[in-house]
Amino acid sequence: MSETNPNIAVAFYKAVIEGRVEDAFRLYAGSPYRQHNPLIEDGMEGLRKVVTWLTDARCEIKRVFADGDHVILHSHWHGLSDNPRGEAVVDIFRLEGGKVLEHWDVIQPIPETSANANTMF
Amino acid sequence: MSETNPNIAVAFYKAVIEGRVEDAFRLYAGSPYRQHNPLIEDGMEGLRKVVTWLTDARCEIKRVFADGDHVILHSHWHGLSDNPRGEAVVDIFRLEGGKVLEHWDVIQPIPETSANANTMF
Repeated sequence: MSETNPNIAVAFYKAVIEGRVEDAFRLYAGSPYRQHNPLIEDGMEGLRKVVTWLTDARCEIKRVFADGDHVILHSHWHGLSDNPRGEAVVDIFRLEGGKVLEHWDVIQPIPETSANANTMF
Repeated sequence: MSETNPNIAVAFYKAVIEGRVEDAFRLYAGSPYRQHNPLIEDGMEGLRKVVTWLTDARCEIKRVFADGDHVILHSHWHGLSDNPRGEAVVDIFRLEGGKVLEHWDVIQPIPETSANANTMF
């Protein structure tokens, strides 16, 4: 993949999901790495502590957006919880010089029923 | 404001929040309007039915991103629920020809404690 911000952010995300946190940071992230997910400490160590949660999880990235230094992913996760419908997730990454330096996310369990037929994606 | 996609999406969002759903659609949205929030029906009528929820709510837009036809807002809401810390919200809008035609969102209550000092924003 060419080294555009979306490609770097997606490669980082996938490496973390696969449990390769050290690779993810060596290849794609910088330091300090500022974490805004309230369950995760700053930096590589924060992600190393939580990556075991992801062992049985899977993620389908539905959309990738980029605006300057930021990359936004809209994804459908399964296995983060026991919700059989999974979660809708948006991740926002901030990059500098081709390295991921900051992360925000918003996570919502997908409800059983919907007022429309369009799905959350 | 100039008629860029971010300005149109933000103006639409603010008009809906202020309860001016008909103005919002007349000025900034098209038809059909495809709704992905599972609590809201498609179209203007869907938003008209739920806008009463927003009477006591307030929203601070923290970040606005744009990528082609899409605009992404990262916001801190209060008053959507009785959570005193409010909710972290990402809205995604798709526009065509300067009109909002599709909406996705992800909403997460802000927890009481955090593993980092950075807030969800």
